[in-house]
Amino acid sequence: MSEKIGILAIGHGSRLPYNNQVVTEIANMIKEAHPEYVVKAGFMENSEPTVEEALMSFEGTGVTTIAAAPVFLASGIHITKDIPAILKLDPETNEGELELDGNKVRIVYAKPLGSDELIADLIFKRAQEVL
Amino acid sequence: MSEKIGILAIGHGSRLPYNNQVVTEIANMIKEAHPEYVVKAGFMENSEPTVEEALMSFEGTGVTTIAAAPVFLASGIHITKDIPAILKLDPETNEGELELDGNKVRIVYAKPLGSDELIADLIFKRAQEVL
Repeated sequence: MSEKIGILAIGHGSRLPYNNQVVTEIANMIKEAHPEYVVKAGFMENSEPTVEEALMSFEGTGVTTIAAAPVFLASGIHITKDIPAILKLDPETNEGELELDGNKVRIVYAKPLGSDELIADLIFKRAQEVL
Repeated sequence: MSEKIGILAIGHGSRLPYNNQVVTEIANMIKEAHPEYVVKAGFMENSEPTVEEALMSFEGTGVTTIAAAPVFLASGIHITKDIPAILKLDPETNEGELELDGNKVRIVYAKPLGSDELIADLIFKRAQEVL
């Protein structure tokens, strides 16, 4: 069986529309740039689909592994506790497992954005836009 | 008088060290990439320096304009209300003014990171790291 990879972009969620929009648009950009991946977005709280709903939406896609990627700037309690609890990750391995279409699907957990030149470049671009 | 530009990277701040580290490292990356700019980091809450302290730390640098750039993923109440209040921005123009070394310094306000290909690329890179 060949590997088919899913990416679940996980947003914080908000009662305001902005976080949902940004995370959904980023998921769509990844999907367009990498059409061989199945890309979904899900939210930790206050927005839909929830992370659980987004995981179940990989049903029928044939993914064998899902990379759960938090669209969060930095680590914190949501990254270290809340999202791993929702994903039911094994605290030893930081990996999880899900049954989809009767098959076991592996869940791996990516790091948040963090300090990266790409973020520095984007902040500089945002500053240039108003200077 | 020639223009000298400051960039103030504004982080949310946190009692945990992660947000502070990421925002400070991003400010340092911008500083290294653009040594002709004066780059500082400041925090909205829970971390130091505060935004006010960071603004005052431009004293003696000779900056004529400061771009206040929120290191936040998406808009929300912090972006639309809290930070503009700290920066004392004019709600009409979204600009502010500060006196440093006896001179008026203009403050302009950048947009948060938002949905940008650079973020999509970084999320994809973070997924690849664990796949």
